Amino acid sequence: MKKKKICVVITARPSYSRIRTALKAIQQHAELELQLVVAASALLDRYGSIVNYIEEDGFAIAEKVYMIIEGATLTSSAKTTGIGIMELSTAFDNLKPDMVCTIGDRFETMATAIAASYMNIPLVHIQGGEVTGNIDEKVRHAISKLADLHLVSNEDAKQRLIKMGEYENKIYITGCPSIDIAKQVNDNPALDFDPCEKYGGVGNYINPNEPYLVVIQHPVTTEFSEAKQQAETLIQVLSEINMPTFWFWPNPDAGSDGTSNALRSFREDNRDNKFRFFKNMEGHDFLKLLYHSQCLIGNSSVGIRECSYLGVPVVNVGTRQNKRLRGNNVMDTNYEIQNLKSTILSQLSHGQYPSENIYGNGSAAKKIADVIASSNPNIKKVISY
Amino acid sequence: MKKKKICVVITARPSYSRIRTALKAIQQHAELELQLVVAASALLDRYGSIVNYIEEDGFAIAEKVYMIIEGATLTSSAKTTGIGIMELSTAFDNLKPDMVCTIGDRFETMATAIAASYMNIPLVHIQGGEVTGNIDEKVRHAISKLADLHLVSNEDAKQRLIKMGEYENKIYITGCPSIDIAKQVNDNPALDFDPCEKYGGVGNYINPNEPYLVVIQHPVTTEFSEAKQQAETLIQVLSEINMPTFWFWPNPDAGSDGTSNALRSFREDNRDNKFRFFKNMEGHDFLKLLYHSQCLIGNSSVGIRECSYLGVPVVNVGTRQNKRLRGNNVMDTNYEIQNLKSTILSQLSHGQYPSENIYGNGSAAKKIADVIASSNPNIKKVISY
Amino acid sequence: MKKKKICVVITARPSYSRIRTALKAIQQHAELELQLVVAASALLDRYGSIVNYIEEDGFAIAEKVYMIIEGATLTSSAKTTGIGIMELSTAFDNLKPDMVCTIGDRFETMATAIAASYMNIPLVHIQGGEVTGNIDEKVRHAISKLADLHLVSNEDAKQRLIKMGEYENKIYITGCPSIDIAKQVNDNPALDFDPCEKYGGVGNYINPNEPYLVVIQHPVTTEFSEAKQQAETLIQVLSEINMPTFWFWPNPDAGSDGTSNALRSFREDNRDNKFRFFKNMEGHDFLKLLYHSQCLIGNSSVGIRECSYLGVPVVNVGTRQNKRLRGNNVMDTNYEIQNLKSTILSQLSHGQYPSENIYGNGSAAKKIADVIASSNPNIKKVISY
Amino acid sequence: MKKKKICVVITARPSYSRIRTALKAIQQHAELELQLVVAASALLDRYGSIVNYIEEDGFAIAEKVYMIIEGATLTSSAKTTGIGIMELSTAFDNLKPDMVCTIGDRFETMATAIAASYMNIPLVHIQGGEVTGNIDEKVRHAISKLADLHLVSNEDAKQRLIKMGEYENKIYITGCPSIDIAKQVNDNPALDFDPCEKYGGVGNYINPNEPYLVVIQHPVTTEFSEAKQQAETLIQVLSEINMPTFWFWPNPDAGSDGTSNALRSFREDNRDNKFRFFKNMEGHDFLKLLYHSQCLIGNSSVGIRECSYLGVPVVNVGTRQNKRLRGNNVMDTNYEIQNLKSTILSQLSHGQYPSENIYGNGSAAKKIADVIASSNPNIKKVISY
Repeated sequence: MKKKKICVVITARPSYSRIRTALKAIQQHAELELQLVVAASALLDRYGSIVNYIEEDGFAIAEKVYMIIEGATLTSSAKTTGIGIMELSTAFDNLKPDMVCTIGDRFETMATAIAASYMNIPLVHIQGGEVTGNIDEKVRHAISKLADLHLVSNEDAKQRLIKMGEYENKIYITGCPSIDIAKQVNDNPALDFDPCEKYGGVGNYINPNEPYLVVIQHPVTTEFSEAKQQAETLIQVLSEINMPTFWFWPNPDAGSDGTSNALRSFREDNRDNKFRFFKNMEGHDFLKLLYHSQCLIGNSSVGIRECSYLGVPVVNVGTRQNKRLRGNNVMDTNYEIQNLKSTILSQLSHGQYPSENIYGNGSAAKKIADVIASSNPNIKKVISY
Repeated sequence: MKKKKICVVITARPSYSRIRTALKAIQQHAELELQLVVAASALLDRYGSIVNYIEEDGFAIAEKVYMIIEGATLTSSAKTTGIGIMELSTAFDNLKPDMVCTIGDRFETMATAIAASYMNIPLVHIQGGEVTGNIDEKVRHAISKLADLHLVSNEDAKQRLIKMGEYENKIYITGCPSIDIAKQVNDNPALDFDPCEKYGGVGNYINPNEPYLVVIQHPVTTEFSEAKQQAETLIQVLSEINMPTFWFWPNPDAGSDGTSNALRSFREDNRDNKFRFFKNMEGHDFLKLLYHSQCLIGNSSVGIRECSYLGVPVVNVGTRQNKRLRGNNVMDTNYEIQNLKSTILSQLSHGQYPSENIYGNGSAAKKIADVIASSNPNIKKVISY
Repeated sequence: MKKKKICVVITARPSYSRIRTALKAIQQHAELELQLVVAASALLDRYGSIVNYIEEDGFAIAEKVYMIIEGATLTSSAKTTGIGIMELSTAFDNLKPDMVCTIGDRFETMATAIAASYMNIPLVHIQGGEVTGNIDEKVRHAISKLADLHLVSNEDAKQRLIKMGEYENKIYITGCPSIDIAKQVNDNPALDFDPCEKYGGVGNYINPNEPYLVVIQHPVTTEFSEAKQQAETLIQVLSEINMPTFWFWPNPDAGSDGTSNALRSFREDNRDNKFRFFKNMEGHDFLKLLYHSQCLIGNSSVGIRECSYLGVPVVNVGTRQNKRLRGNNVMDTNYEIQNLKSTILSQLSHGQYPSENIYGNGSAAKKIADVIASSNPNIKKVISY
Repeated sequence: MKKKKICVVITARPSYSRIRTALKAIQQHAELELQLVVAASALLDRYGSIVNYIEEDGFAIAEKVYMIIEGATLTSSAKTTGIGIMELSTAFDNLKPDMVCTIGDRFETMATAIAASYMNIPLVHIQGGEVTGNIDEKVRHAISKLADLHLVSNEDAKQRLIKMGEYENKIYITGCPSIDIAKQVNDNPALDFDPCEKYGGVGNYINPNEPYLVVIQHPVTTEFSEAKQQAETLIQVLSEINMPTFWFWPNPDAGSDGTSNALRSFREDNRDNKFRFFKNMEGHDFLKLLYHSQCLIGNSSVGIRECSYLGVPVVNVGTRQNKRLRGNNVMDTNYEIQNLKSTILSQLSHGQYPSENIYGNGSAAKKIADVIASSNPNIKKVISY
């Protein structure tokens, strides 16, 4: 039997971490052939290229697609999407996949969705139907309207897609594959590596056996000019709390240069701070680091998703994860210095939460591969009402 | 007071005809400044450039955006959208509009929607919420998910957008501006010009005072290889019916070369046929020609929209207008020669229908300009549920 | 032994005709592997796609590169080159050729030359060192400065390249492969087909056994606005001479729409003219048609190159072939109606010329393949003085 | 009188420094209007954006053109040129310059040259006719073949262009405008600022009143894989010499990431080194810093050009400036550790050289503006022989 060719497009480090178990399940499925396209910031050194990780994980990269126009302005973000469409359409033309698969709501996923749609290739969307309250939410829903098959995290997302006019028989609750890794870590959480030693990073050494914090802070695209100021607020509060802190660099959205600048200039002026900066970390290691942290601070969706399963206390700052379905482990706050500080202190005094299943139970990968293998979505899609 | 700059992007001849009254109303509105961008096939001679018509109508063209990659393959259609995003983002960067306005569901409108969205410019969508049953329907709904303000044709479209999760207070029923022109024609329908004389065209002369047919047949993108065959079927049936026929060339979707070839080769082999081929016609003239025709045949949305108001008998062929809300004037059929022929004969024996208001009552332009002037849509848009 | 991969990029119909024998020689060479990339107007129906001819000739097409932005303005010509670079660099990345080969001086060849240069792939240029006196001449010389190996038509071209600072040991006189076909035709010139029957075309039937003319007229890019007028002059003079005329449509340079319009509108108004219009013709057939013609009129380089070998009388009009090395068979004139007419009449009364070898003796293909196989050009190229 | 619009395209920091006096002279010339386009790495923070310097210098930026695709592979360099053509053609279309002016031989200058050429805008090339012996030399000569007016540094360059077939009456010896600034500095060389204090930079403080070195080391594109190793060699030798060293980051050619990595990892491992790293420095300050340095080391053309006028001892490493015309101040060496070290020590013991005029006498700016104002180059350019 001829295998179905499933082209998965990865455009960013976190997307890869999230989808990795599903990639493996597709690769190992008897009826499927994986075609992995690595694109955009996932290829770039300064955001932590994941090419090496991917190859160490045993995946062959079918195409590398460079598409980011340097500049981090809103106009260059738009142009990046345009170039992405031009380049991905060539990639699809070469690979001739039976389905194209895209994840989440980042702006580059729109390029994948449009190229596949115009080329009449059925589009699979993972993580559709969720709400976040931020600027990317409309991208997520627009992709759902272009997608021909939806693999969602939970009943909440499924019901939302049905309301939006998607046919129920095209929606499958698989859970989010990011939770598969969280489950592996939860089952075996020993912190069996020294982060500074294994990953280098920049800054002073942190002993991972002493209590520490983790920060992941992304710029929010519609608040371009505020990106730098928000980073500075965060830096000030964390300086005051004065615990060892693992800090991860932001992704290359418009505004990233603002955040980066704030971090760089702080670092130069405060040689004896307790921060250590990382570009990225292998997925399991990263979740283990989170698992043992006192608290995750920032605006990453990892706090909402994986940490709900892991029970890690999270201080979610600002609007980026606004309306996302969340567990009891999350406390929300804003960029007011007092609010931010007191919320962090609350979580520090609370400690670990019980595990919750709201984004999956750890078996998403197999379900995703099975659904893709058994589905034949029709590209001639209409709304259900 | 500073006027709001409203950038309207026109990518095709029929979009211009449809929106023209609204452009005039925006241009004349005390609080609005019109920035007209003409792009894609609207600029190209072989699809009937509308640049002259636009200038004769008294509009200044702010930017011309060439974006179509020749080739009419699915891959080049995708790339055209990519180039459109690159070029339109520059245009928006130069024009700095307060809002960007796009119309309908053609693939190039996606380029407008994406460029505006990533540049944080509020997006106004005209003709959202309608169903058509064809491949472009998903594009229409995806644009609705990116749009910040919806100006729709009827209550049916409004209710659909609300169901899709759009906030009711961002949706206005203005009617479709295409009906504004239909109303003007309906009020004063005299055929005061000779089509062959005024517009040239190619083929034998047709006396407009004798009974005639009109054909507008577009290729359907997912049936690429069938485009030529469908055109040939239509040619055969109309040859048998043997009435004078005004035939309009298709637009430049993927597959257009198939349709064009069928028409060209027929024309070369049948010098004494009763067809006359046109690229385009000024909007009023076109509707007058339709008003006095015995029947419109093909798969254009004009048959569904303007003709419902004008009461012109329409034979709608194939799937392109599948589920679109339609009046009593439309009979549907397929590309079976017998079905097609008998449906045309039915309409010929029926004659004119009464006017219906399902796409508007002729006052859309003023409503559109007023809504745009009084609205301040928020780009930080979320779903309503 | 591993074969050297030679990637030849064809961007237009005449380039293919010219290079065909060399493609065959590369394909058949024991040490070479041919990678044929077909791009730009060579792919487009309305300029006479050569894809079918190529496949009938037994070549596999490695990549098809759509790159022409419709519009035929100077800006869209520039953008076409930009897209060409983007797309060809992907093609080269996929094909990983050991050398890239480009022909002549058309604007699209610049895209090939730049993509190869920046990717550090040795560039072979065929037809370098010639002068033409037109706008494309500077493109030809710029490509020579980027090229790492030069395969030229004659000693004149070689000496010019040496003067320009190219190293003599990188320049080989192979003759132009277009003359290989001219030699085959000259050896066996029987007109064994009926052009109208075999190629269709548009217009009234021409009996090829009666005396006839051939016209090939290209727009000249720097005289954009004059393109239409020049075509009209040619039409008028040829109407007066009133001989059966095979007329070939121009290529898609900026300005082509002007020429096309003049031809189309003439044809519509003069149904009983003696012109027959063709898009293209297989190379041998085309040269046979020229061989038996009374005269070739226009501004094509075929008149200068192949016709010097074939001895066909040529009236070369305008500046396009200005300074090109030419044989005795060519009479030059301008767009003055009287000059043009009297020059054509002179050639008609002169008749056939003796064959000349100035662009080769018919053995270019083998020499080209042998030189490519035995050369290892160094991309780190400097000027010789 | 209507002023001639002169569009100058700046694509990199060093090009701006070099051309600044000429920009000022064009801006102030009664018959000229300056249109300044800033593009490519000149816009990017991580290579030291020059936007602020430009504005402080009193120039308005007519267009900003983002064109660099992140990735620093050879393929993305090629694509960057393609995007540059697409974007610059739009810019030229908006600005409608009477002439376009480009400088030097960097790959992005090819985008400027091609866009201008295809749009029939006369092209002025500054710094044509020079030899360098590196990969970019062929780009320089290719641009000369496209250029319609040549403003060269010296008689040597002029004679080379004449040999290449350029008409003598299109070539003007103006001197290089970079020497204008060198003259100003030579006339008034006091080091009136503290580099670390004024420009920040990264690394340990350097007292500029003590003897110091300056390093500028660029990756060489055809030796991609060696870039990192060459940087490491340089680092080792300079560590051994152990003098305070001002080190400037490389420009964004393919390979830049290799060089950057070597520098970054050295810096992390050697906290107490004597290096201080800078992205860029205002032109006068930079030349003053050079003037007072013991020696400039690396492969920058500043060592060849400005330093010949300033009399600064230079150790030129490797092939990048291979055959460039040079003064007595330059000693050449390679990446052999012993050679490199002994050459540096020789220069340290030699000290300051007498000033030479080989790249100009400091009055280039005025000559350039005057020649541009009085010339009307013809775009219909042919070779002179």
